[in-house]
Amino acid sequence: MTGNKSSTKKELIAKDNFSEWYDNVLLEAKIVDDRYPVKGFSVYTGWGMSIAKRIIGMLEEKLEENGNEPMQFPVVIPEDSFQKEEDHIEGFSGEVFWITHAGNNELERRLILRPTSETAIYPMFKLWMRSHQDLPLRMHQTCNVYRYETKATRPLYRGREFLWNEGHTAHVDYDDAEAEVRAAIEAYRSVYDRLGLSYIMMKRPEFDKFAGADYSVAFDTWNPDGKVNQIGTVHQLGHNFAKAFDLTYEDADGEQATATNTCYGMGFGRTLAATIAHHGDDHGLVLPPIVAPIQVVIIPIFFKGKEEIALNYSKKLFDEIKAAGIRVKLDDDNRFNPGDKYFTWEMYGTPIRIEVGPREAQNNKVTLVRRDTFEKTQIDESELIPTIQGLFESIFENLRAKDKKTLDNLIADAYDLDQLKTYMDSRMIVRINWCGDPDCAFNLKDMVSGEIRGTRWDVEEKPTGNCIMCKEEAKYVAYVSRTY
Amino acid sequence: MTGNKSSTKKELIAKDNFSEWYDNVLLEAKIVDDRYPVKGFSVYTGWGMSIAKRIIGMLEEKLEENGNEPMQFPVVIPEDSFQKEEDHIEGFSGEVFWITHAGNNELERRLILRPTSETAIYPMFKLWMRSHQDLPLRMHQTCNVYRYETKATRPLYRGREFLWNEGHTAHVDYDDAEAEVRAAIEAYRSVYDRLGLSYIMMKRPEFDKFAGADYSVAFDTWNPDGKVNQIGTVHQLGHNFAKAFDLTYEDADGEQATATNTCYGMGFGRTLAATIAHHGDDHGLVLPPIVAPIQVVIIPIFFKGKEEIALNYSKKLFDEIKAAGIRVKLDDDNRFNPGDKYFTWEMYGTPIRIEVGPREAQNNKVTLVRRDTFEKTQIDESELIPTIQGLFESIFENLRAKDKKTLDNLIADAYDLDQLKTYMDSRMIVRINWCGDPDCAFNLKDMVSGEIRGTRWDVEEKPTGNCIMCKEEAKYVAYVSRTY
Repeated sequence: MTGNKSSTKKELIAKDNFSEWYDNVLLEAKIVDDRYPVKGFSVYTGWGMSIAKRIIGMLEEKLEENGNEPMQFPVVIPEDSFQKEEDHIEGFSGEVFWITHAGNNELERRLILRPTSETAIYPMFKLWMRSHQDLPLRMHQTCNVYRYETKATRPLYRGREFLWNEGHTAHVDYDDAEAEVRAAIEAYRSVYDRLGLSYIMMKRPEFDKFAGADYSVAFDTWNPDGKVNQIGTVHQLGHNFAKAFDLTYEDADGEQATATNTCYGMGFGRTLAATIAHHGDDHGLVLPPIVAPIQVVIIPIFFKGKEEIALNYSKKLFDEIKAAGIRVKLDDDNRFNPGDKYFTWEMYGTPIRIEVGPREAQNNKVTLVRRDTFEKTQIDESELIPTIQGLFESIFENLRAKDKKTLDNLIADAYDLDQLKTYMDSRMIVRINWCGDPDCAFNLKDMVSGEIRGTRWDVEEKPTGNCIMCKEEAKYVAYVSRTY
Repeated sequence: MTGNKSSTKKELIAKDNFSEWYDNVLLEAKIVDDRYPVKGFSVYTGWGMSIAKRIIGMLEEKLEENGNEPMQFPVVIPEDSFQKEEDHIEGFSGEVFWITHAGNNELERRLILRPTSETAIYPMFKLWMRSHQDLPLRMHQTCNVYRYETKATRPLYRGREFLWNEGHTAHVDYDDAEAEVRAAIEAYRSVYDRLGLSYIMMKRPEFDKFAGADYSVAFDTWNPDGKVNQIGTVHQLGHNFAKAFDLTYEDADGEQATATNTCYGMGFGRTLAATIAHHGDDHGLVLPPIVAPIQVVIIPIFFKGKEEIALNYSKKLFDEIKAAGIRVKLDDDNRFNPGDKYFTWEMYGTPIRIEVGPREAQNNKVTLVRRDTFEKTQIDESELIPTIQGLFESIFENLRAKDKKTLDNLIADAYDLDQLKTYMDSRMIVRINWCGDPDCAFNLKDMVSGEIRGTRWDVEEKPTGNCIMCKEEAKYVAYVSRTY
């Protein structure tokens, strides 16, 4: 599928130096090319897009099982729709791109590029919603959204164009919307879990919720640079948008009632960034088998006069693996030696490498090297498919377990500001007791290099002391971290 | 997956009245909703997007087999890149959307929304192309493009935002690019063929080729309204863009050489429109099984006191069909009677309906009704899966054969202007002898309600008389038709 043809073996960058490692991996493993001549806009290149497509497919399948219909709304939103919900305008108007002209004309009505699609979708929901029998409405779309970010951009983490999937729903009542929030959270979890990503689920504080939401739940994951990476959010919107967009329906008693909405978004750039940043090592990417564009690479080792033997046996293995539905590549490009190929496919994070020399061929043996530990196994050809499947499982479990351990080790408890500062300086995720007053949160942000990200959604945690800031009674256990 | 819950049985519109039939089907079968509040922008709704996703998947798989890497380029192109290739500017500058502001700022450098992506992609190709070993470069992306159309818009046929897949390549020489043109054509054919769509492959006349191309090949298909629907195009770009964008590389002799480019695009809106318009009938959609979101619908028929028998047997059949990898739905919604359900699923074009009454359940029989002919078959349960598979094949072959016959019957030969006018009035696709002079083509367009679309690409046709316009010696057999 891909290969770094004209380059030879290059210097590796240690992952300890995360920032340089990351930039290098993005280019060398063809994830994203950030040299596009418009600031904040990047190109997903072959390997990155192949991985992203698999993550997208996993989520879309899950959402459609849940009953979300795939749709596609226009990228442009007319100014008047965009300006219907007050909190929403306030949250987004500073960062939208404006289309003002087309062809040689100035447009009568200016259009924005969607920063998110509520205000594109609700005017249509209104048309589709007459009776309670039309509800719930559930849709999803994979698309790009546009935000004129003023913060520093970073490929996949923060761009002015970003690829995501957004779900939007309308329900007869708040309870049904609450059930939808939980269903969306489960759908998102199922994707992150299968990528081996650990995360904490935060209920965002009031001052940090989605513009127009009743409340927001976010998936925060760790990052090697000590910032926290928000990879997905789910919002209970209550009646806020329904009132602004007049989303009413006739209920079972023939009365007009107002709908309740939810919306949720998973950023594929950030999810891909997490997959790269969490699992990668000094040799490059380490991909969970489920999203690896090539899961097994076969590399024949040519000894003079015995090339055919190794090549024919490689082809036989290739056919066998492919027939089992595994994504396999035979790298028989004779311009490079095996060592260069190992280097390349390690960089690409291919989960299993099979090395085929004449000795393997003559004895019907297979030598497999797993990417995560570099452990080498030799087996009989007859055990090939179950061995590969077992290794996939084992690689995944190993990545997931390591990931969980890393996150667990990053979380610490602080009971006073000095402790908090110390932990923040070591780039930890820190639990504190908090009274819930936004002023305490803002003061905290001024004093340490992080901010309150919220309280746990998935686990109930009770404060064990007074507020770390005002020393009044604490209501919450809050999490403090650096953030993108 | 979907259903028209709050509506009851509606009036059917005969397909003879194509325009009204089409608008009705788009809404009733949830293909596209054209009521989005910006002119020329439509919403792909659940059923339409589900079908489109399957067409997209078919093409992407084929292109990736061919070696095109999936990528994703930004939607915005800076003004200076867009203006590098002269013919291209001339062709597109009248119809681009301009982004001039972001947040509260006026942009220093204006951006356009891509009308097509050559000028976004080539600056990056330039970075990726150092040596002949880096070539060929082959990518594809599924995305929306934006053209400020001044002609009347029509959902799926012509919009200001349209969903397509575009392939872009760079090659060491013209011959290699010629091979790519053929490979792309084969990829496109394979998709249209599997949709049962008949088409003619036209080499467009010089005056109608893609802006910046050496030559353009197009897939034109018939439409019930007598216009011809261009569903895909493949372009040999020669050195035109390579020169404008300085796409050079070091060849095997160490010399700098200029690359050759190709590009190609398949419009999913138009391909979906053709699938709907060709195969549909007075009852609604008739979908080729390969793209039907639901391929088999099971409808239990409830007799009082025997509901459980029919329902349990329906569930058993459902499990059996699903286990065979077939997309099946059990419609056990008890708000509607079987007749209403037949009506709905016929509208959605579901290839096979299974009717389950207590008699079927008690005798282990299955009654199947195929959507294309409404023919009813009763079989033993043991034959279920092979029967369904056989029906899928048979439905597809029937749709394809009918489609081919329709196109064949639409093509006529005209040897003088009167004949041509008569055929054009009957909305035929007319073959004429043509000298090749653009003036004759323009004069023709002024005199009849159609235009020269090109000469056959896939079949060599020799003129059988003099030019229908100037009476000089004819060089080509050209095709004349109305067009979108």
